[in-house]
Amino acid sequence: MGNCQDSCKNFWCGPKNTNVRISLPAICFIWQIAMIALFAIFVRYDPEADAHWTEYMHQNNITSNIENDFYYRYPSFQDVHVMIFMGFGLLFTFLKRYSFGGVGFNFLISAFGLQWALLMQGWFHSLDSTDWTIKIGMKSLINADFCVAGCLIAFGACLGKVSPIQLMVMTLCGVSLFAVEEYVILNLIHAKDTGGSMVIHTFGGYYGLTISWILYRPNLHQSKRLRGSSYHSDVFAMIGTLFLWVHWPSFNSAIGNHGDGQHRAVINTYLSLAASVLTTFAVSSLSAKRGKLSMVHIQNATLAGGVAMGTAAEIMVSPYSALVVGVCSGIISTFGFVVLTPFMEKHMKIQDTCGIHNLHAMPGVLGGAVGAVTAAFASTSVYGQEGLMHAIMHGFVDRTMGMQAAHQAAGLCIAIISGIGEARSLKQGYLFSLGCILRLPCWGDPEDENCFDDEVYWEVTATKVHILATRLCCWTPMLIINKLCRRSVLCQCEGKIRSQTRFTERMLLHMHIG
Amino acid sequence: MGNCQDSCKNFWCGPKNTNVRISLPAICFIWQIAMIALFAIFVRYDPEADAHWTEYMHQNNITSNIENDFYYRYPSFQDVHVMIFMGFGLLFTFLKRYSFGGVGFNFLISAFGLQWALLMQGWFHSLDSTDWTIKIGMKSLINADFCVAGCLIAFGACLGKVSPIQLMVMTLCGVSLFAVEEYVILNLIHAKDTGGSMVIHTFGGYYGLTISWILYRPNLHQSKRLRGSSYHSDVFAMIGTLFLWVHWPSFNSAIGNHGDGQHRAVINTYLSLAASVLTTFAVSSLSAKRGKLSMVHIQNATLAGGVAMGTAAEIMVSPYSALVVGVCSGIISTFGFVVLTPFMEKHMKIQDTCGIHNLHAMPGVLGGAVGAVTAAFASTSVYGQEGLMHAIMHGFVDRTMGMQAAHQAAGLCIAIISGIGEARSLKQGYLFSLGCILRLPCWGDPEDENCFDDEVYWEVTATKVHILATRLCCWTPMLIINKLCRRSVLCQCEGKIRSQTRFTERMLLHMHIG
Amino acid sequence: MGNCQDSCKNFWCGPKNTNVRISLPAICFIWQIAMIALFAIFVRYDPEADAHWTEYMHQNNITSNIENDFYYRYPSFQDVHVMIFMGFGLLFTFLKRYSFGGVGFNFLISAFGLQWALLMQGWFHSLDSTDWTIKIGMKSLINADFCVAGCLIAFGACLGKVSPIQLMVMTLCGVSLFAVEEYVILNLIHAKDTGGSMVIHTFGGYYGLTISWILYRPNLHQSKRLRGSSYHSDVFAMIGTLFLWVHWPSFNSAIGNHGDGQHRAVINTYLSLAASVLTTFAVSSLSAKRGKLSMVHIQNATLAGGVAMGTAAEIMVSPYSALVVGVCSGIISTFGFVVLTPFMEKHMKIQDTCGIHNLHAMPGVLGGAVGAVTAAFASTSVYGQEGLMHAIMHGFVDRTMGMQAAHQAAGLCIAIISGIGEARSLKQGYLFSLGCILRLPCWGDPEDENCFDDEVYWEVTATKVHILATRLCCWTPMLIINKLCRRSVLCQCEGKIRSQTRFTERMLLHMHIG
Repeated sequence: MGNCQDSCKNFWCGPKNTNVRISLPAICFIWQIAMIALFAIFVRYDPEADAHWTEYMHQNNITSNIENDFYYRYPSFQDVHVMIFMGFGLLFTFLKRYSFGGVGFNFLISAFGLQWALLMQGWFHSLDSTDWTIKIGMKSLINADFCVAGCLIAFGACLGKVSPIQLMVMTLCGVSLFAVEEYVILNLIHAKDTGGSMVIHTFGGYYGLTISWILYRPNLHQSKRLRGSSYHSDVFAMIGTLFLWVHWPSFNSAIGNHGDGQHRAVINTYLSLAASVLTTFAVSSLSAKRGKLSMVHIQNATLAGGVAMGTAAEIMVSPYSALVVGVCSGIISTFGFVVLTPFMEKHMKIQDTCGIHNLHAMPGVLGGAVGAVTAAFASTSVYGQEGLMHAIMHGFVDRTMGMQAAHQAAGLCIAIISGIGEARSLKQGYLFSLGCILRLPCWGDPEDENCFDDEVYWEVTATKVHILATRLCCWTPMLIINKLCRRSVLCQCEGKIRSQTRFTERMLLHMHIG
Repeated sequence: MGNCQDSCKNFWCGPKNTNVRISLPAICFIWQIAMIALFAIFVRYDPEADAHWTEYMHQNNITSNIENDFYYRYPSFQDVHVMIFMGFGLLFTFLKRYSFGGVGFNFLISAFGLQWALLMQGWFHSLDSTDWTIKIGMKSLINADFCVAGCLIAFGACLGKVSPIQLMVMTLCGVSLFAVEEYVILNLIHAKDTGGSMVIHTFGGYYGLTISWILYRPNLHQSKRLRGSSYHSDVFAMIGTLFLWVHWPSFNSAIGNHGDGQHRAVINTYLSLAASVLTTFAVSSLSAKRGKLSMVHIQNATLAGGVAMGTAAEIMVSPYSALVVGVCSGIISTFGFVVLTPFMEKHMKIQDTCGIHNLHAMPGVLGGAVGAVTAAFASTSVYGQEGLMHAIMHGFVDRTMGMQAAHQAAGLCIAIISGIGEARSLKQGYLFSLGCILRLPCWGDPEDENCFDDEVYWEVTATKVHILATRLCCWTPMLIINKLCRRSVLCQCEGKIRSQTRFTERMLLHMHIG
Repeated sequence: MGNCQDSCKNFWCGPKNTNVRISLPAICFIWQIAMIALFAIFVRYDPEADAHWTEYMHQNNITSNIENDFYYRYPSFQDVHVMIFMGFGLLFTFLKRYSFGGVGFNFLISAFGLQWALLMQGWFHSLDSTDWTIKIGMKSLINADFCVAGCLIAFGACLGKVSPIQLMVMTLCGVSLFAVEEYVILNLIHAKDTGGSMVIHTFGGYYGLTISWILYRPNLHQSKRLRGSSYHSDVFAMIGTLFLWVHWPSFNSAIGNHGDGQHRAVINTYLSLAASVLTTFAVSSLSAKRGKLSMVHIQNATLAGGVAMGTAAEIMVSPYSALVVGVCSGIISTFGFVVLTPFMEKHMKIQDTCGIHNLHAMPGVLGGAVGAVTAAFASTSVYGQEGLMHAIMHGFVDRTMGMQAAHQAAGLCIAIISGIGEARSLKQGYLFSLGCILRLPCWGDPEDENCFDDEVYWEVTATKVHILATRLCCWTPMLIINKLCRRSVLCQCEGKIRSQTRFTERMLLHMHIG
């Protein structure tokens, strides 16, 4: 019995094994084969991507190929694709020794998640009841990318502290939960959420925070030395920020209505983003000694305007309101970084590596609220009869504006609940004990002192800098300066004593600087 | 009196205070609130972005959503947006310790300037006389980005030598001047300038040079150590160059005429850019010992082809002429870097950090001249009657080609004059003494010895490299090698003397390498 | 006689002169002038880019400007352009000291090659027989970029071992061969190859490998120290990878049929790429000790899915087959890096710097095979009568599916043969002895020990790090640690002896770290 307890304790608390040589390939292959089987059964081309398109055109009185949805959405899709893989990926390279992991695991779980997202979203939203297949086209690909975005946000909270296998489990659950939550908000409640403030950002943010709370590491300070940025890693992350910032108008307009809907979404997002840049710089400067700006704030809070404009992107909020939304989101996001993140880490056991609570969760909630308020104030004088139906109410002619606003608010609550609630309930074992599952020692997560370190999962070749001292005018020492700070520097000085006053020998210094 | 003079001297010449903790947030907030107020009063959605679009379609016999200007211009807009924020931003990261400032301040003043540009350009170009509002749509956003580009060019000349507050003042004035000058050239003279060789590049270039002349620092050599690139900062800047180079066809075609106009602008720019790459490599190699290429030339002069093709982008110059324009611009731009920039710094008191005279001002003038010449040679045989009206003459049926050419040349002169003249007159106190204003000590600009240094305005966390010497076979010294060269390296060697012949103690070396 | 032999030997085997100050500019200028002359004679605007477009619209019953091919293809063109200049360019920066060369020479030969490609492809594919001119439009620009891609693949095999002049000669021959091979495959055999698996990747891969075999360097190990990556150069290369990965759907759809063709090509490529990411991670982890992932694999093999989907991109392969293609290509590509590249270097005298055999040649062959197989299984039930003609058979109504499959296979063989055969025959002197030509000592290629080093062709300013030791509590030595490992580090310690027990003097340490 005691023996059993011991081995049990060993199993849970023993030294961690980060060797993923068997588990990672196994999961990838099994999963990919499952995907192929499911795709073979369920997935077909959309009529607009099918070789019967010419016949379809004749049947539907479409006169030109340019009316194919492809030409409406492809530029936006490309931008969204860039945001997912390059924007998020590079934003995650900000840690000084976790750039490979940031961009690489982002790549892995995105490619993994989007296949599952195509299926899950297909089953929930667009299962063709005649032949039980899913027809995928441009809009499906965009939605799959959106779904993956939610999981990448969650990744941001756990960056550096989890193994690729844990990430894949997280993504698997995240995509599944996302599809359900999205189905409830968009198809049952019929709330409007063009740019996904609620569906993507609020959900993704709280999902990630809850995971991070489940995986709380009390001794994370042991890897404190690696939990910062270097000069160049900050520039890499800034490239990611700019990718996200520049393409955010496409994100918020990608699945908007053809014509004025997409056009308006771009304008609103453009303005909101511009305003959040100014307030971010302002608050960042205000919060630091001597007014020095912090790259962490600039890299993140400048994007809050895009997040907060998501739900109301297509709504006739008018340009100045877009600026107001941007101003507010920039302020709360930067204050979040200054005040909330340290507070949450200290008092709430939530270690949020990238500050997703500030960039996604809070501005997402703000965005949901903006959506509810603006829906309440919509009127036919502003929209025109046709416009109102089209832009806000999804053709529900009997809804009043107040009802629509209430539905929007309901959608927001559901997003928060599904983010926190479900993941938390998982921890408490109500559902399937994802909490326990994620903490299983077999996932290969790193020791506390090895967090934020690429060496754990990547072959990192340190740059060797050889220094040869050819003249030493003193007692030449036999120095062997051994490596100190885990891998980063190895200094070996070798020499021989010859004379007390004359240079005699050579000193060899190897420095791994990387 | 003497006391007054002293305090006056102290005010102007005393030690500079780079603390922007109050001033920067104050300006950002005040400005942003002013923008919100003005937007609330003046700015509305364009009919193509308004919810009444469906009704507008019926009224104007538009049969399909794809005819919305959004679908004509959105891909080009996105590319221009990428150029402004990522292209310019990364190009400015080339200095070894000013990457944060380059990309960060570029971000700040772009987001700041585009809001003001939407208003200024709206008032001058598209104020609706019925309700005194500005209707913004896709084209307004592109034009705002263009306007910001002019100010970013000016930023290039001052890179590293000014405070963010000075930059905002510069941008404020630059955008205002730009809108006036653009109004004169495009709406009064009716010159053609699709890609902005005159309006954007010539103006921006000379505006920046004049500012740089106003802010001349005789002792700039004190920060010489930081006025160069490092290996990786050069690669970052090269990414910026490539962003600009690859998307320049979109820049020159973004506000072109629908159909053949945009199509032709892309082809001309594509060819001109390709030709300028070859001549840049040629002249760069020719001008250096052993033919070694210089990254500065490759990063900048390769883009001159795009600048020089701006005015004539839509004109039927024929493909080979586009190559000729590219060849010439590549040559003059590279020669500018080799010969002119050092000359101007030494003899004309113009310190042009990024060489904007070579990349923007000179090729811009060339582009304006090309526009005038090609307008003079335009004929109905080449264009067809309809094409000629459309492509060159803006519907002015009574203009001869010679007259159009003269108007183009006049436009060029105005661009140069507004760049140099207005800014210079500002210095001399004719207008509002911008010169004095910009030199006010309260702006927080850095000391001569701290130019080109991110530490002044940014929190820079140096990378610590710890070296622990575990064995020292000599008199172990108590070394405290203190930091020398401002922040870059701190070397601390700590040890204790034990014996003259045996290793005894540990040596700790901290190196901040960043 | 002996003297003659000696001088002959000296000519071939003497020390290499890497001074390209005369030869590089000469070639650039001569070539550019030749291009201008040829463009003046042959190249005109396409009707869709000509000022007569309005008249052309009337004649052809085109009702809207949006029907201009520009609007169908411009977003894809931009993405392809980004891939060529940024994707390939940054992917080539992975070597620790060859980033300038990778991205810079990529820039040079692309700009050089695309002009020649426009002419060669024009002469072969679209010479207008009425006036003997080439009409260039959007599709010509895309095809020119494609043609350049073939040569850049070949550059990948020779990266770091050749001079810019050799690269230009290689590109000149490569573009010419490409145009011929493409003409045979697409216009004579009428095989289908939308995304260029055969025409671009197979050809480019084997062409590059053969060149690499011709230029075999037995003593390349002398520059082994530089033949690796550094931490940040790997991140730069990863950005290149992501550019390629994200935009590959545009690459495979850029010259696809309007409407469903482009739409389907994007979906197929998107899925295939996603699958190859998973298998690349799996095999990479499987092949390393402790399952550590290798950046080389992630940077390259993840793209194999796009290569392998090229030929069949527009074919109705159905989504699950696209996943299967991605899985297979990811596996063979990663295995190639693990097993084949070392084998080829050791036993076949092929030094393939970037592993293009694994990324382009093998997946290209796979793609060609997939094209042949899927063509064989095409049927009217899947495509519809119209769709079948359109998507696969180019209007050849009398071809059976088996015949089309045979033609596809024939196309693949020709691509391989033109890659290997022609280049190899060149070596053996059958054609024009390109082999000898490329090995002429006048091209300025680097010595074996200077390969992979930017210092040969670029002005590299090393970063100086000054360390000043202000206190030394021991015999202060006069240390002059001279530079050891070629340029990378120079350490100079200067001091003066004062006392054996007290600190006395300052130590100056200069370190060039770059």
